[in-house]
Amino acid sequence: MDLIDQLKTGNKRAAAKLITMVENKLPGYEEVLKEVHKLSGGAYVVGITGPPGSGKSTLTDKLVKNLRKSGKNIAIIAVDPTSPFTGGSILGDRIRMNDLNLDPGVFIRSMGSRGHLGGLSEATRAAVKILDVMGSEVIFVETVGVGQSEVEIVRNADTTLMVLVPGLGDDIQAIKAGIMEIGDIFVINKADIDGSNRTKREVEMNLDLSHHERRPRVVMAVAIDNKGIDEVVEAIHEHRDFLVSSGKYHQNRAVTAKDEILEIIQVQTLKNVLDNPRVREQLEELTQQVASRTMDPYTAGKHIMDNIQS
Amino acid sequence: MDLIDQLKTGNKRAAAKLITMVENKLPGYEEVLKEVHKLSGGAYVVGITGPPGSGKSTLTDKLVKNLRKSGKNIAIIAVDPTSPFTGGSILGDRIRMNDLNLDPGVFIRSMGSRGHLGGLSEATRAAVKILDVMGSEVIFVETVGVGQSEVEIVRNADTTLMVLVPGLGDDIQAIKAGIMEIGDIFVINKADIDGSNRTKREVEMNLDLSHHERRPRVVMAVAIDNKGIDEVVEAIHEHRDFLVSSGKYHQNRAVTAKDEILEIIQVQTLKNVLDNPRVREQLEELTQQVASRTMDPYTAGKHIMDNIQS
Repeated sequence: MDLIDQLKTGNKRAAAKLITMVENKLPGYEEVLKEVHKLSGGAYVVGITGPPGSGKSTLTDKLVKNLRKSGKNIAIIAVDPTSPFTGGSILGDRIRMNDLNLDPGVFIRSMGSRGHLGGLSEATRAAVKILDVMGSEVIFVETVGVGQSEVEIVRNADTTLMVLVPGLGDDIQAIKAGIMEIGDIFVINKADIDGSNRTKREVEMNLDLSHHERRPRVVMAVAIDNKGIDEVVEAIHEHRDFLVSSGKYHQNRAVTAKDEILEIIQVQTLKNVLDNPRVREQLEELTQQVASRTMDPYTAGKHIMDNIQS
Repeated sequence: MDLIDQLKTGNKRAAAKLITMVENKLPGYEEVLKEVHKLSGGAYVVGITGPPGSGKSTLTDKLVKNLRKSGKNIAIIAVDPTSPFTGGSILGDRIRMNDLNLDPGVFIRSMGSRGHLGGLSEATRAAVKILDVMGSEVIFVETVGVGQSEVEIVRNADTTLMVLVPGLGDDIQAIKAGIMEIGDIFVINKADIDGSNRTKREVEMNLDLSHHERRPRVVMAVAIDNKGIDEVVEAIHEHRDFLVSSGKYHQNRAVTAKDEILEIIQVQTLKNVLDNPRVREQLEELTQQVASRTMDPYTAGKHIMDNIQS
C-alpha cells in the first residue's frame, strides 16, 4: 500500500506501476482496486470514440492543450482493443512521442487487451480510478475503432464524444445507426474536406430519429488546425452542467457501478473455473465431448457450474 | 422441434425463425441450441473482418458468387456489433437489397447486438449451427468494424480473411499490430488505388515479425471489379487443406468448443443473478453502496456470488 500513499501525493511513477499491476493482475491487484475505488470518484471522465481515421488522437491532443490553459490536471488513457497480443504498444509509441508528455500536468497511458476474457474494460476502469486518486481532474479515455467492447468502454464515461469524419465509405452509414445512441456530443472532424456539411446534416437527421433525453450537440472541427476546439470544450461543460443539474450524473454513476459488479462476477466465475485443477480437468474432458458433438455446450456448462458450487 | 425437422429438409423459413428465436432468447431456445449443436459441424466457416470502408461486403458478395458456380450451398451472416440498439437493421437492409437474395442456394442474415452481455457471439455461433443443419456447406461470417468482440466472433471461424485497404489513415497502422495475428489470409482490397503496393509490403513486413504456424497468403483484389476473387478462393482452399492435413482443423474446433462452454458459464451466471428477485434486489442495494464508494465492487461481487450459491 506504499504505492497508494505515493499515488495520493500525485506520484506518476506510482500510478504507472499500479496500472501495470492491475493490467497484468499481479499479486495484490484486487486489494489495490478495492482501495482506489473507495478513494476515487472525483475526476470527470470524457470518452472519445469513433471510426479509425477520424482523428481522435489529434482531437484529444488539442482538447487537452485547451483544458491545460485553465491549469487542470489531465490524464489520457488510450485503449486499443484491437490489439489483443501486443498490448497496444504501437499506439502507445505513437502517443508517447507526443509533446504533451513534456507537460507535468498531463499523464498519458496506452492500454491493449491482454486476453479475451473481458479484461480490458476492467483494466480501463481501474486505470481511471488510479489516475483519479493521483489527482487527475479530467480523464480522457480514447478508443481505437468502434466495436462492442469500445462501446462498453465509453459507456461508463460521464461525457462521450463521437468523432465522425466525412466520406469514410458505406460501412460508416451502417455503423451510424448504433453510433447515434452512444454519443453525448458529435464532432465532425476534418470539416474542411468535401462533404462535411452533408455529414453534419446526416448526423442531425439521424439524431432526429434517435432517443436522447437531451439532444446531443453536433460540432464541426478541424482538430489539426485547432479549429472548433473551444466549441467542443464548451459542449463538454454544457453536457456536464446538464448531467449535474438533472441528477443524471449520479444515476449514470450508479449504472457504472452495476456494470462493474456484474463484470466482476463474470470474471470471477471464470477464474473459479480456470484456477481450480479439478474443474479445469473436467473442462478439458467436456471440451472433447462438445467438439465431437457427443455433448452440447449447455449441458457441459451446467456440469461445470455444478462442480464449482459443490 | 417441428421447426428443426423442417430445418433438416433445408427450409429457409424455419432457419430464419430459429435464428430469431435464439437471438431474442425466446422460450425453448436452449433446447434448440442443444439440438442443432449435435446435428451440426459439417459446414466450413469463413470469417471476414477488417476496418470500416475496406469493402468486406462487396468481397463477400463476389466470393459467394464465385463459390456458387460449383453448386455449393452458401450462407452469409453479417454481424454488426456496433449497433447495440437497432439490431443491425440498416446493414441488414443494405444486404437484403442484394441480388444474391434471389439465388435459392444462398441464405443471408444480418445480426446486431441486442444487449451488452456477451450475447452476440453466442447468437452468431447459434446461427452458424442452424444454417449448418439447414445444409449450408460454406458459411461466411462478416463483421462490421474491428474491435475486441469482432475478433472474438471471427476467432472461431475455420479460415479468417482480414481485408485491408490502402490509405485508411494512421489508426490503421496502430490496428495492424493486432490484426496480423488474426488473419489466416490477408486481402488488400481496392488494390487499384494508390499505395496498394506499399500496403502489401507493410503487411508482408509485419507478417515477418508475427507468429504464425503457417505464413498467411497476402492477396491483392479489386472486389468491385471481380479481380483477385479466384485467388482468394484458391487461398481459402489452400488454408483448409493445410488445416485438415496438419490436424489443426480438429484442434481449432476444440478451442471453439471450450470458448463456447466458458461463454455459456458466464452468461448463465449473469442470468442466475438477474433472474432471481432476491439476488437482483441485493444487486440494487449494493450498487448504491458501490456508487457512493462506501463499498468496493469486488466485495459487492463476492456477496452476490455467495448469495447465488447458497
